[in-house]
Amino acid sequence: MPTPQTAPVTPALAQRLGRGGRSVYSNLLERAQQSGHPLIPLHVGDTYLPPALDILALEADPTMHQYGPVGGEAGLLQAASEHFSALQGVDVPTRELLVTAGATGGLTALFSALLQPGDEALLLAPYWPLVAGGARLLGATPVAVKAFQEELTIDELLARLDEAYSDRTRLLYLNSPNNPTGEVVPREWVEGLIDWARHRGIWVVSDEVYDLFTFEGVHTYARTLDPERVISATSMSKGFGMAGYRCGFLQGPERVLAEVERSATYTMYSAPTPAQRVAERALRGPGRSWADVARPLYQAIGQEVASLLGAAPPQGGTFLFLDASAWLGAGGRFEGQPLSAILEELADRGVLLAPGPAFGPYPERLRMCFTAASPEQVRAGAQIILDVTTP
Amino acid sequence: MPTPQTAPVTPALAQRLGRGGRSVYSNLLERAQQSGHPLIPLHVGDTYLPPALDILALEADPTMHQYGPVGGEAGLLQAASEHFSALQGVDVPTRELLVTAGATGGLTALFSALLQPGDEALLLAPYWPLVAGGARLLGATPVAVKAFQEELTIDELLARLDEAYSDRTRLLYLNSPNNPTGEVVPREWVEGLIDWARHRGIWVVSDEVYDLFTFEGVHTYARTLDPERVISATSMSKGFGMAGYRCGFLQGPERVLAEVERSATYTMYSAPTPAQRVAERALRGPGRSWADVARPLYQAIGQEVASLLGAAPPQGGTFLFLDASAWLGAGGRFEGQPLSAILEELADRGVLLAPGPAFGPYPERLRMCFTAASPEQVRAGAQIILDVTTP
Repeated sequence: MPTPQTAPVTPALAQRLGRGGRSVYSNLLERAQQSGHPLIPLHVGDTYLPPALDILALEADPTMHQYGPVGGEAGLLQAASEHFSALQGVDVPTRELLVTAGATGGLTALFSALLQPGDEALLLAPYWPLVAGGARLLGATPVAVKAFQEELTIDELLARLDEAYSDRTRLLYLNSPNNPTGEVVPREWVEGLIDWARHRGIWVVSDEVYDLFTFEGVHTYARTLDPERVISATSMSKGFGMAGYRCGFLQGPERVLAEVERSATYTMYSAPTPAQRVAERALRGPGRSWADVARPLYQAIGQEVASLLGAAPPQGGTFLFLDASAWLGAGGRFEGQPLSAILEELADRGVLLAPGPAFGPYPERLRMCFTAASPEQVRAGAQIILDVTTP
Repeated sequence: MPTPQTAPVTPALAQRLGRGGRSVYSNLLERAQQSGHPLIPLHVGDTYLPPALDILALEADPTMHQYGPVGGEAGLLQAASEHFSALQGVDVPTRELLVTAGATGGLTALFSALLQPGDEALLLAPYWPLVAGGARLLGATPVAVKAFQEELTIDELLARLDEAYSDRTRLLYLNSPNNPTGEVVPREWVEGLIDWARHRGIWVVSDEVYDLFTFEGVHTYARTLDPERVISATSMSKGFGMAGYRCGFLQGPERVLAEVERSATYTMYSAPTPAQRVAERALRGPGRSWADVARPLYQAIGQEVASLLGAAPPQGGTFLFLDASAWLGAGGRFEGQPLSAILEELADRGVLLAPGPAFGPYPERLRMCFTAASPEQVRAGAQIILDVTTP
């Protein structure tokens, strides 16, 4: 094998996610850490509360370090079946359940089963950012349809969907309670959306990870309306405060989940065995009681900072989607400056928020999580936002 | 919205992995469980030994239930940097490291950064099955090149690679110590393979998860030969007995890992926080000492069952790739019967093995893991294999 005369080269990277470098978060995090101010991390959907059950409360078990079955351990599937059946008022058999590495791992594996390269996914916007990236990673195109924080009737929304629909559309993604706006989608909307998807012959993917944090109105479990068309994602991350343990669920038709299970083999193998064990015990033990305690705490701080920042009170979830247009527009502190100027100045005061464009076509919005830090920190963070953005 | 007149339909599944149903393992597992015999699960690469550090040995920590940074926690990256630098005799800085959800999650995320749909990945065969599925999932084509358990010189192997190479080839995948054959690839081969890849201008992906289980010869850390071209995968799963915890590593050029980190956001978000904490402590504490204890135990049972079954003793790893051709051919117990007849009869005796075709074009091979059950069970399993396959 002769040594090549030209300089060694490697192929270009695939750039499935477009050109990129370090994430915006990494740069802002560094800035905040170097600011000398206490870090107030309101950019990630986390919880300051201890989890429903600490992983260290598990009993020693000689199989906990071993791989679990790809689709989930039988005991956890059974506990989840009972939990979801009770919540939803319909039977959710274990064959319609799959254990995943959080809802994140579940939704990306689901997309690999539903979307081929070139296919399109309609995302009701603003949407959870990772769902757009997951579609892109698999060669599909996310198509944002503005739905939340708009004064829309369901018929007007369906008209927007008609406009966005193409012959490559394969699914409609809905997230309620909504991340980032905190809206709870009313039942008539869920019904209308599923009817529309049925008429178009496409899947409905319903992201329901904040189901237990519904402050106003009633959460509608979409699969109860059309179990053969809807696949829903839930998680131990939010309703049980176990995000770092990485355990979630998909609920869907058996033939869909069988395909997702094959994909998941390659993306995560199995959800972590200790996470599955603690999830099973949490579902059988504290159950909904942890969320019942957390809910009014979350709602109170959410309402308080919404009021302070002049935003609508959240109906559910753990976020506010702040309108920064007044700060960027006439009379505002950042007049004529882009969103990044606000994010950087906040980071210099220790406060981290997420930029609106991660959630769809929202160049003048900022997302704040009001549960990722203690109410005292969140309150302090909101005051800093006020200080920084007041002219 | 009028109700459609035709029956509601949903789109076809994407079938990125081809037509399929339940995995062959699920069916065999059920059969084994219903057999009435003790289950001897030799089909998965697991360990019967307790892990280097039990996750329950961690101290309580108020952040353990929260998300970690996507690329890994700073403390774990630092501990891994020191561990890998000492092992490899070269500096492995933290910027050339990424924490992943096991090597499985890491390799699939890596493939998403290196492979576009339609690209080809050359896999030295037999190969670890999940690497072929990961490539398929991403729309790329795995191309098997028979390399192990063949009487080949490196020049003959390179001639095979020349034949398999096309203008869509983007990477060469090498796994040593090899799963499933137990071969340790000699340094001259690794050098020749990297030279060949350099000449062709493609990436080298080196799967080194069994590095600490080298019984004969010396493991060659491929990145020490060309750190800008080689990306290597390692894991806490094998060398620390922590497969169920889901924590592994990629080592590679910073610009490649930056892209992988973006992809990993969508496939797993972060590796489980408790797994990262226990990994850091295991790297700083027991370090290589656990593998130093496990290695002679693994080697002894591997040699014993290889001898019993008439196979070559493993040079490394935790598997034997058994030649079933004599059992399928003239004079054998399964004469004229396909491999599945052996697998099913073994399952009916409680013994599970993995079918050769999962590892490439090997219709007459069976893989046996000799560490997934205790030496007593493995010995009993080997005896059952002998009984079942003896005419």
